[in-house]
Amino acid sequence: MTEVPLFADLIEAKPATVARAVSIVENGRPGFEALLSKLHPRLGRARRIGITGPPGAGKSTLTERLVRAFLDQGLKVGVVALDPTSPFSGGALLGDRIRMESVALDPGVYIRSMATRGSLGGLATSTREVCDILDGAGFDRILIETVGVGQLELDVTHMADTTVLALVPESGDGIQALKSGVIEAADLLVVNKADRPGADKLRVALDLALDLRLGKIFGQMPAHHGTLRSGPRLAAEEPDERSWRPPVLLTTAVQGEGITGLVDALDRHWAWMTATGELEVRRRARLRLRTREIVDRAMRRWVWQESNGEALISARLDDVTAGVTSPYEVAADVVAVLKGGARQ
Amino acid sequence: MTEVPLFADLIEAKPATVARAVSIVENGRPGFEALLSKLHPRLGRARRIGITGPPGAGKSTLTERLVRAFLDQGLKVGVVALDPTSPFSGGALLGDRIRMESVALDPGVYIRSMATRGSLGGLATSTREVCDILDGAGFDRILIETVGVGQLELDVTHMADTTVLALVPESGDGIQALKSGVIEAADLLVVNKADRPGADKLRVALDLALDLRLGKIFGQMPAHHGTLRSGPRLAAEEPDERSWRPPVLLTTAVQGEGITGLVDALDRHWAWMTATGELEVRRRARLRLRTREIVDRAMRRWVWQESNGEALISARLDDVTAGVTSPYEVAADVVAVLKGGARQ
Repeated sequence: MTEVPLFADLIEAKPATVARAVSIVENGRPGFEALLSKLHPRLGRARRIGITGPPGAGKSTLTERLVRAFLDQGLKVGVVALDPTSPFSGGALLGDRIRMESVALDPGVYIRSMATRGSLGGLATSTREVCDILDGAGFDRILIETVGVGQLELDVTHMADTTVLALVPESGDGIQALKSGVIEAADLLVVNKADRPGADKLRVALDLALDLRLGKIFGQMPAHHGTLRSGPRLAAEEPDERSWRPPVLLTTAVQGEGITGLVDALDRHWAWMTATGELEVRRRARLRLRTREIVDRAMRRWVWQESNGEALISARLDDVTAGVTSPYEVAADVVAVLKGGARQ
Repeated sequence: MTEVPLFADLIEAKPATVARAVSIVENGRPGFEALLSKLHPRLGRARRIGITGPPGAGKSTLTERLVRAFLDQGLKVGVVALDPTSPFSGGALLGDRIRMESVALDPGVYIRSMATRGSLGGLATSTREVCDILDGAGFDRILIETVGVGQLELDVTHMADTTVLALVPESGDGIQALKSGVIEAADLLVVNKADRPGADKLRVALDLALDLRLGKIFGQMPAHHGTLRSGPRLAAEEPDERSWRPPVLLTTAVQGEGITGLVDALDRHWAWMTATGELEVRRRARLRLRTREIVDRAMRRWVWQESNGEALISARLDDVTAGVTSPYEVAADVVAVLKGGARQ
């Protein structure tokens, strides 16, 4: 009943309404899918930018600086921080969040931390839906930042139009990133904390790796660092306006250095994506994935909330515990009942 | 056709068969659920021990030492290492794995690393199933060790009969663990690297926190470290043989110190669980969860492999991309078709 006024207020981007809509979506409250469905035709205006990289790469500071730069351009900025909420690293993350709050006072900014805990398997979907809310509410830029380590660093590449990979000179993370293939998913590479020793060395190594990648022989590149540095620098392929060569940028985010260059590179990547149709391709792929996720969620709801799946298991749990039947036999029966029960 | 000889060889624990069965299960190859279903009545002999804790707590070294201790008792030991395969930390993890390989040469040991990458949402299920293979193959102890940071640290408590939480003195992880509630899930606490400064201080803090927990006022405990140390030590409740007070053990795993005490504590916890029926309660809860997971997996298989869910999405993706319809409307239609299609 309150859904229609909520929708109207949301597309006018009333701050309290944005926060309320995000909560409704994040908690899967009644009507959340109807709201998102109604919002769908209005989406696509916001540029979604993912910031990923290892812990200590300065992702939060980079994000904060980007927020300021976008605000200076008169843009509205949403930030979605993905927090794996490890039980062992809450303190450090909290510090990041507090630091970020300094820009949160600006009325053009909305910041939301999303925790994985308790939403196992569902965080990626919820995050995309929260980004939709911000998109629909008229935010111009949406920054999606991963905190901590894990699968989320790769997931973010499936949420964003443009993915920024942040690295720092002193760690071995750059070389790890090369080896692991995460570099393949990055549209822009940033060597942050570039005032530290080794920044230029890392930039050269990344540039070489990217040239080799464009030369289609990335797979055969020796992974050893020394070889990388001393090896011959191969010529890049002829520039092709259809392909995007990720630039390697140097930033010192804590002092605001290199941020203008990063903003420019983000604009160039956007222009390239719109000109070549790449944006359409990426968004189409994301919508396919999204629809799949919504189907999976609806099926789980059917089994565990609308049907008697849980009761069917309970009734036979004694037999399973006793070894008389197996979880696989019970599961097969539950699925058969669900398929058959759909007949009525 | 080869399934029956595989089963016979498996329960004789022929090493090559164990490795083959684990691969079949891990990759979900044809017949994997039939094999697990057949194995189900034979399960329950192995003790499943989860080792969790923050990075740097020495979990791999602890695991390796436990493996050696169990081997010295003439036991067969399986190790399942859960590796979140962060693209940014491959190197350090690899080092751990290589170190572990030193005990892998013993014929009484089987070690398997399981990577999350590409199995998002399915790792927990696969891990439990690999543990079943090892249980069915006659391994006496199964150590499940988390590597890295994230949700997995909590998941392990749902895979094991007994959960060991490893902490180290110098980090703030101990206090974080107290605050986050992960301590609630641990059956044994280990302060590893106990030769370092602060080990005894951490032990005292953990002991106090556990006493307070038993006193049911854990929720009101001041989280500040200083307060913890200087606050009054409350008396624990009267000992109750029905309740288990997690011991706080000191180990220096790299030198093998404290391992005997840890093995003894594991035995005591096992004896307590069997005497009180707690083991039955835990295993029953795990079997319920397992059956749910198998149902979810079967439903996904039905939607995406046995039915035309993917084709239904493809047919309407143009409309979704154009904003004519939303992913939610398409998903609802797919679910309706599946429910209806079950009628034929």
